Amino acid sequence: MREAGCVVRPSPRVSQSAFVRPGAPAAHIRDSDARRRSNWRAWLIGRPLSTADAPHQAIGKAVGLAVFSSDALSSTAYATQEILIILAMAGTAALGWVLPVSAAIVGLLAILTISYEQTIHAYPGGGGAYIVARDNLGDLAAQIAGAALLIDYILTVSVSISSGVAQITSAFPSLYVHRVLLAVLFVAFVMTVNLRGVKESGLVFAMPTYFFVATMYLTVGIALFRHATGTLHPLADAPPLEIEATRSFGLFLLLHAFSSGTTAVTGVEAISNGIPAFKEPKSRNAGITLLWMASILGSLFLGISYLAGTIGAVPSERETVISQLARAAFDGRGVLYLAVIGATTLILVMAANTAFADFPRLAALQAADGFLPRQLTYRGSRLVFSRGILLLALIASLLIVVFEASVTGLIPLYAIGVFLSFTLSQAGMARRWRKVGKLAPGQELRERGSVLKPDPRWRLKMVVNGVGAVITALVTAIFALTKFTSGAWMVLIVIPLLVVVFYAIHRHYRRLAGALSLEDFGPPVRVDRHRVIVAVSGVHRGTLAGLHYARSLSHDVTAVYVANDAEAAAAIQEKWGYWGAGVRLVILNSPYRLLIEPLVAYVREVVSRRQPNEVMTIVVPQFVPEHGWHNILHAQTALMLRFALMFEPGVVITSVPYQVRTAT
Amino acid sequence: MREAGCVVRPSPRVSQSAFVRPGAPAAHIRDSDARRRSNWRAWLIGRPLSTADAPHQAIGKAVGLAVFSSDALSSTAYATQEILIILAMAGTAALGWVLPVSAAIVGLLAILTISYEQTIHAYPGGGGAYIVARDNLGDLAAQIAGAALLIDYILTVSVSISSGVAQITSAFPSLYVHRVLLAVLFVAFVMTVNLRGVKESGLVFAMPTYFFVATMYLTVGIALFRHATGTLHPLADAPPLEIEATRSFGLFLLLHAFSSGTTAVTGVEAISNGIPAFKEPKSRNAGITLLWMASILGSLFLGISYLAGTIGAVPSERETVISQLARAAFDGRGVLYLAVIGATTLILVMAANTAFADFPRLAALQAADGFLPRQLTYRGSRLVFSRGILLLALIASLLIVVFEASVTGLIPLYAIGVFLSFTLSQAGMARRWRKVGKLAPGQELRERGSVLKPDPRWRLKMVVNGVGAVITALVTAIFALTKFTSGAWMVLIVIPLLVVVFYAIHRHYRRLAGALSLEDFGPPVRVDRHRVIVAVSGVHRGTLAGLHYARSLSHDVTAVYVANDAEAAAAIQEKWGYWGAGVRLVILNSPYRLLIEPLVAYVREVVSRRQPNEVMTIVVPQFVPEHGWHNILHAQTALMLRFALMFEPGVVITSVPYQVRTAT
Repeated sequence: MREAGCVVRPSPRVSQSAFVRPGAPAAHIRDSDARRRSNWRAWLIGRPLSTADAPHQAIGKAVGLAVFSSDALSSTAYATQEILIILAMAGTAALGWVLPVSAAIVGLLAILTISYEQTIHAYPGGGGAYIVARDNLGDLAAQIAGAALLIDYILTVSVSISSGVAQITSAFPSLYVHRVLLAVLFVAFVMTVNLRGVKESGLVFAMPTYFFVATMYLTVGIALFRHATGTLHPLADAPPLEIEATRSFGLFLLLHAFSSGTTAVTGVEAISNGIPAFKEPKSRNAGITLLWMASILGSLFLGISYLAGTIGAVPSERETVISQLARAAFDGRGVLYLAVIGATTLILVMAANTAFADFPRLAALQAADGFLPRQLTYRGSRLVFSRGILLLALIASLLIVVFEASVTGLIPLYAIGVFLSFTLSQAGMARRWRKVGKLAPGQELRERGSVLKPDPRWRLKMVVNGVGAVITALVTAIFALTKFTSGAWMVLIVIPLLVVVFYAIHRHYRRLAGALSLEDFGPPVRVDRHRVIVAVSGVHRGTLAGLHYARSLSHDVTAVYVANDAEAAAAIQEKWGYWGAGVRLVILNSPYRLLIEPLVAYVREVVSRRQPNEVMTIVVPQFVPEHGWHNILHAQTALMLRFALMFEPGVVITSVPYQVRTAT
Repeated sequence: MREAGCVVRPSPRVSQSAFVRPGAPAAHIRDSDARRRSNWRAWLIGRPLSTADAPHQAIGKAVGLAVFSSDALSSTAYATQEILIILAMAGTAALGWVLPVSAAIVGLLAILTISYEQTIHAYPGGGGAYIVARDNLGDLAAQIAGAALLIDYILTVSVSISSGVAQITSAFPSLYVHRVLLAVLFVAFVMTVNLRGVKESGLVFAMPTYFFVATMYLTVGIALFRHATGTLHPLADAPPLEIEATRSFGLFLLLHAFSSGTTAVTGVEAISNGIPAFKEPKSRNAGITLLWMASILGSLFLGISYLAGTIGAVPSERETVISQLARAAFDGRGVLYLAVIGATTLILVMAANTAFADFPRLAALQAADGFLPRQLTYRGSRLVFSRGILLLALIASLLIVVFEASVTGLIPLYAIGVFLSFTLSQAGMARRWRKVGKLAPGQELRERGSVLKPDPRWRLKMVVNGVGAVITALVTAIFALTKFTSGAWMVLIVIPLLVVVFYAIHRHYRRLAGALSLEDFGPPVRVDRHRVIVAVSGVHRGTLAGLHYARSLSHDVTAVYVANDAEAAAAIQEKWGYWGAGVRLVILNSPYRLLIEPLVAYVREVVSRRQPNEVMTIVVPQFVPEHGWHNILHAQTALMLRFALMFEPGVVITSVPYQVRTAT
């Protein structure tokens, strides 16, 4: 980088606030073109993107639907079946209730969609449960929502990848022993695609998503057409119903079936967190995408549930409801049938992508508020929150390894978090409408994430969100009760633990800000004495370079040498007499042949006798060999000494490098 | 450590050489009592030993025999069998030659013993093949001997531990799948015992060694007594001879049998390397131990070979010769028989201990001469060369893993190295006697490792060593030829490669010494300008501490801030106007959101425009949190910046710590 090659921007106007002294120097502002050099990284995730490229990375509605809806849409592959499994416990007759239950879930979907549509417009900077809870219910509710959602995103990755791998290993049983490795490789693949940026991951994953939507609409459409024309026949060879009728039919069973089916709506949250990823106008585009998603999800889900009753589909371990429906629609296992099965497998793996898009955004929001490590707010070379993506991949892979890629083991942990966050989001929005209702006409109230404006229909909206809150709270409770013993208890323990950790982090940052604050910070004390200690390992050019530098700092210089034997001590004394330039030399005899510890002990002792206005500097001559591999031929004492002294209070550590250029 | 508690030694007399300027300050010499704190280490290998404890760690002859002879003595367990295997190739009749061949090998043992006895007295500081070759044949021969011996010590560990594990897994076949793990655990065990110090390892391993010697003498003694009294009968149920007679009897076969049997003498070198470990008088004690070892080894070996012929022992995969002998001596598999088998298994594992005693000593010698990394000369907390012990354990474990603990795979690599080093040692001693012969009466010649004095019998001694050199050279050649295709080629490639590496290391140290040398080193250039750059990450107390320190160093201070966005740049500019104390601020816009790279590029640019007498210091304010775990909440930019700049030429790096003490 040369001065001539730099674009020197005109210095921006220094604002004339009360803090600026007249004549304060304007800063020199220069553009740096420094990039990382590593080529394997560019090869893997693409060339670095400049911050100015951000608008080009924004995604449209079509790609947005693929990125943020694959999780939601994939649930149509199993939601109907989940309802049937519960209903079947009350006997075959109860199976007819699948359509009313599904309709009720679609009603819930409608409430959630309307609510999130409003949220998206109210919170244009991203308005997931976290932001809504934070601005309306307070930090604690927000952190609970954040913990619940983060856990659920992690589980989404583990469960969806594990179920995708399970589909593959049922087709190729020889791969079963490698299922954990396969699943971890899938996680690594989805992670890498996401590290390439949200736009690229959208393009990669759009095709399978739309392929799934198309095949499902084709299946449902053909089946409905044949039903209307009277050519759709109930399945003659449906699998046998193996679920024993052990429970009586009643309201509780219906509620249980309802809550099991709500797995269909778990993906609704995704888009509201992802608003900033959309092209301008962001809120409008995100809102339209949400409506698309809800329409596709609702229509497919209702269609499948209606047809399941029509063809007499049976919940079974041996054949999925989707498979039964496709067989009925296409009269057997032809090409179209295989397309449906293939698309279903793909969308299950793909569902992980939504979690990879949302987890890092949510984590960055929490980090920006100081409840997670700040590093999660850094954007990587491709403008995505790389560290969040890596963190998600790491934890999800760990879960997969611990649970040995077992879907059965992981699924009970799933969905509680989402409904907890739904409840908080709905309650928060209800609270918001009450605040809106109290506003005088024309009054505006600015909060952290949004601006409140008067709305004449605030009562209706408050009721909608209130009803949503009650229903989602009910579903959360049913989930917690019915799945408690099979693993949900873990989630119910982990969420409060995480919240405690979040608050510990927050307290650290808050205290740190106080400790670093310049409020009431007086002028610094005058330096009256600068005491310098030079650690010497012998008398040679490197040592003398360090000594020379030390003497340029202060007149109060002490050289310290650690001696392992009397000969070494005598040798350095003799040489020091000639080369030491009159600087006093302290020799520390080290009976245990240690180099670092005696020096650290000496420094601590000197520090303990320090005067108030005294500055202490330790000069460490650092020998820098020509080639990196030469370092293994040296003891790296300087490096180890630096590490040992780094956390010693009140000591400035200075490395004086001596570059060795050996003649050949 | 407090001043009052320190023993201030009287300053040693500063020698009045030409280099010492009158009035040069005498050094302050203090004893440091700093030790390492880690308790697990003390628990594992014992409390640290002071250098002054060294004499108490010296070992006597009885322990010395156990430490340095277990390798040699263990060879009596298989040497006779090795000869029989070769002889059997020429048919059963040839087996009778086992005694003459064994006698010839004992003759070689005698030559080697006499030679090493002389060497031990000639080189009281340790006189293995390495030292003898270095002082008499030059560096190249010494490095070849060193490489050959180091390889052989590594192989001794791998082979002996693997064969010990093989004995265990034949008794407990269910352990076979865990053999690699078992072998590595054995290596770790022997390593740990050796890290506890040579004395402790001697005490631990003395019992099995003496138990083996005792049981072998008992077996041979009883068998000889019964033979004399005519009650020792040839074995009725000797295993069948499965070796096919494919070769004709002749000189070459006898030579082959001879070289196979020389495995018995491979351990003779050990004591001569270990002289410094013995109590005073070191040479005398080591010499006597060598004589003991040779006597035990020779007598047992001859006895076993004689008895093998008498009882008609047959070389077999199914039963060892020792087992056949013990059965014949004790009339079947009784308690005494089991004691012999158990002792044999133990001594095979134990043989690794000799390598652990010698490898680190040899490596330290080579490191002291600058042919291996200097760190190998450091004595650990228990006064042994810990790094050499760890290195040996590491490489031997790697070999075990690669060869899957297979004795058959490892054994062809073995013994070439020893005989190569024997040859060099014998040739070196012969050369030494020639130099002695040229001395005038009363004249003394001081070499690096020894002092040469006239000896009237130098011709005889030269002939003895000369004959030894020829025989060992012959054995080396036979080894290389007969075992070439089964793995010896690896050793013949690795030895020269190692020698090349040794010389590369040596060249580095030599050049470095030249580059650091103070010869023709003039007075240092005067510092005319001290330019200081402060890397700031914001404006807070930590930054101001760094700025304050920087301003105490020089009037030429520049603060540099890397900005990821315009808001951050504007914010710092405003604050800097008030708090920057008039120091100029450079803002580097980083379009790729990098923190380290733009700063490094800026520093490089400034360095490139440096004046000759200018010193450059980069001040990095380093934030030190209260608790270690808090570090994960911070980006560690200061640390990364230090690493990035560490190898930047001509830049002094200064860390100014800011200790955060947050109020509760």
